[in-house]
Amino acid sequence: MIRQIALAGALAGSMVLPAFAAQEETASDPVTSFTLDNGMQVVVIEDHRAPVVEHMVWYKIGSADEPVGSSGVAHFLEHLMFKDTDNMKSGELSATVAANGGQDNAFTSYDYTAYFQRVAADRLGLMMKMEADRMTHLRLTEDDIATERDVILEERNMRTDNNPRALFTEQMNAVQYLNHRYGVPVIGWKHEMEELDRADALSFYHTYYAPNNAVLVVAGDVSPDQVKTLANQYYGVIPANKNLPPRIRAQEPPQIAARRLTYKDARVAQPYVSRSYLAPERNHDDQKTAAALYLLAQILGGGQTSYLAQKLQFDSRVAVYSGAFYDGVSLDETTFNVAVVPVDGVSLADAEAALDEALAQFMQDGVDPEQLDRIKLQLRAAQIYERDNVGGIANRYGQALTTSLTVEDVQAWPEVLQSITADDIMAAAAQVLRPEPSVTGWLMRGEAPEGAQVQPVAQLPIQQEVTQ
Amino acid sequence: MIRQIALAGALAGSMVLPAFAAQEETASDPVTSFTLDNGMQVVVIEDHRAPVVEHMVWYKIGSADEPVGSSGVAHFLEHLMFKDTDNMKSGELSATVAANGGQDNAFTSYDYTAYFQRVAADRLGLMMKMEADRMTHLRLTEDDIATERDVILEERNMRTDNNPRALFTEQMNAVQYLNHRYGVPVIGWKHEMEELDRADALSFYHTYYAPNNAVLVVAGDVSPDQVKTLANQYYGVIPANKNLPPRIRAQEPPQIAARRLTYKDARVAQPYVSRSYLAPERNHDDQKTAAALYLLAQILGGGQTSYLAQKLQFDSRVAVYSGAFYDGVSLDETTFNVAVVPVDGVSLADAEAALDEALAQFMQDGVDPEQLDRIKLQLRAAQIYERDNVGGIANRYGQALTTSLTVEDVQAWPEVLQSITADDIMAAAAQVLRPEPSVTGWLMRGEAPEGAQVQPVAQLPIQQEVTQ
Repeated sequence: MIRQIALAGALAGSMVLPAFAAQEETASDPVTSFTLDNGMQVVVIEDHRAPVVEHMVWYKIGSADEPVGSSGVAHFLEHLMFKDTDNMKSGELSATVAANGGQDNAFTSYDYTAYFQRVAADRLGLMMKMEADRMTHLRLTEDDIATERDVILEERNMRTDNNPRALFTEQMNAVQYLNHRYGVPVIGWKHEMEELDRADALSFYHTYYAPNNAVLVVAGDVSPDQVKTLANQYYGVIPANKNLPPRIRAQEPPQIAARRLTYKDARVAQPYVSRSYLAPERNHDDQKTAAALYLLAQILGGGQTSYLAQKLQFDSRVAVYSGAFYDGVSLDETTFNVAVVPVDGVSLADAEAALDEALAQFMQDGVDPEQLDRIKLQLRAAQIYERDNVGGIANRYGQALTTSLTVEDVQAWPEVLQSITADDIMAAAAQVLRPEPSVTGWLMRGEAPEGAQVQPVAQLPIQQEVTQ
Repeated sequence: MIRQIALAGALAGSMVLPAFAAQEETASDPVTSFTLDNGMQVVVIEDHRAPVVEHMVWYKIGSADEPVGSSGVAHFLEHLMFKDTDNMKSGELSATVAANGGQDNAFTSYDYTAYFQRVAADRLGLMMKMEADRMTHLRLTEDDIATERDVILEERNMRTDNNPRALFTEQMNAVQYLNHRYGVPVIGWKHEMEELDRADALSFYHTYYAPNNAVLVVAGDVSPDQVKTLANQYYGVIPANKNLPPRIRAQEPPQIAARRLTYKDARVAQPYVSRSYLAPERNHDDQKTAAALYLLAQILGGGQTSYLAQKLQFDSRVAVYSGAFYDGVSLDETTFNVAVVPVDGVSLADAEAALDEALAQFMQDGVDPEQLDRIKLQLRAAQIYERDNVGGIANRYGQALTTSLTVEDVQAWPEVLQSITADDIMAAAAQVLRPEPSVTGWLMRGEAPEGAQVQPVAQLPIQQEVTQ
């Protein structure tokens, strides 16, 4: 089993997607959607250029829905879903996919857990048969639990505990969220992962894995009618869980005190300043503020021609890198992030001061209309190129439909982006770029803790990408 | 209903008790303890100097046991416990106590909720009858809920939202705890209090209000036999709740990144620096580290002759006040706190630098043996004086028995304190006074937020005391 992408959310904190990922298809997308009688939503994206299909099942359940004290159970269950079912042996699903020339994997984030296979289009029924089987017929032995708990602990060790940037991001998130579960890492706190047991996994499974809590996304060389027939045959026969709990989460209180943190680690190769601001997310029929923030991130920190790059990398030359990030696909309040990596010899204090000066100057200068037009044009172009990536489109619909957005919201997004004015962007900037809802972090080179074996850590890019 | 003390925990964050409260009686205490057949623990403290009795029922349930999203429900239920029961009208219990010349009240903290009456000793049976009645026969109307929810919201408004120090402390706690529920205020987050309903209150009541989750403490002019007879008559007939859930809470991950926060408020009369360090609590049969921390707080910040007062108030004269606080009576990890109030004209940055310098100097100087001897002698004296305060003794046993300590632990505490050496104290200081598990806060005078009506706020002492 490959699990490369399972931890993208955990590593990146509020998951930072590649820039193009926020572009959506226009209303002319070849997208069809419907709902089975048992409540399972279905989205079909037609693309007949190659006889291939991507089959995904997304559950509206993620780490932010976990019971208190059981952090990591959503991701743990994702691993366990490859074990024995009533009809398949452990590993049989992936082996069958591979034997049919395909690939499969799964991933977990704050708001969703998803399973997918990419295979020849005529194997779609077989994929559904296996996926439907493990939706209800999972068997878990104590041996599975013990083995797979070791696997996720080693995953945490490798991806988080051996990575100062991941530890730093984890602490930043924990301080950003005072009440909401987004402050707890997707992979889980180690001391809680160690206690996860069979009862935890099965309780999570039986509560949340049901067709009325799932979205089926099929993309590729298929017709909606074919998908409907197969979906009814394999998924339609599974009864809805009538006891599915409402998805209610603890929300943030007003964030009234600016926070800071310092994380020192002997393994840090490149110190930097990171800042996150609590920010609104994309909501159903209400995406304008999020669109303004998305454009703000592009203007401030989207590449070499961005405002921060000009100020910090070219004018004052205090930084080797600067960036701004905002995704917005999130069930609850998300973050707007900026980062500055200073040049050798510039302190983090000076880098932060330069960042603050640049942001203050931006609030005075306002949006350069030519830059905004250029970015909007680039977005239009990116949307067109994006149509070539049917897997990317499938991901976007899956993410959207598990975070309270609709097919219509996804289709409206490109026009919402185009409709945003310079004034909208400055209003969103004034709303979000305030000290009170912010956390400023310094990742610093520190002394090795006593007795610690310091291993060199490979340098990772600051902007974590989903490595699908 | 008076509810002065209900919010002590919420206001003070990790509740800072007056210095004498940590002294316990010696093994010669006139204390008897036993358990009823239904699991209710009973502690009797004899004091025959006056024909008066203090009757307390402590539930092993507090705000840190609340369901996610329902912050404030423990305290809300405390209020509602004065409403109609099957056998009493709303307010009847307090009216009956008053008509009998007594007083009654209740209070809620992170780890416990307690109800008490002080009356003539011959009214003990009547008190038990009423208290036992509301343990199981509470009735709640929608009208009670609406009325009392407004009361707790107004309480929060008055005690927290109109008090910059309380807001500051609330934010400090939220940033201190990354995972544990001690980061959520006892009174609750306002947006969650607004949503508390009858089902929340009744669910909490039916789950946790039961004799096997309660401790009866009776102090005063009674004999253990009298108490046993009455307790069996009134409480012994109530069946145990066999579905009482185990008291399992989410614990902290390693705290690896020093945190800071700044809270600015136009109503701040006196800016100051506050720092809290995550610290071990008193545990059953394991009180030495807590005792060392208790003595450390006395040495560093217990009055005018303390180390910080000497350094900051008398030598460098940067501070008008300095203090160190540690209680240790807590079910889970608690905090060790220091605070410095600078003199006019000294910045918070300079005050903090002076604090850090003084703490570093203390780590080099070590404990002054004469100061330690003097403090131990004062503790011995305080213990003796404390015997006069039977209510204080009752409180100490109630707090201890609801935070996993035993009668034996309480009785051992004075000797544990006396056994602590200078080396023990320096080891505890080295363990706790580190940047990584700390939060440093600046309470600053700020601009009034737009549209806000700024009301002058009465100056409160930094060290909040329980105003029982």
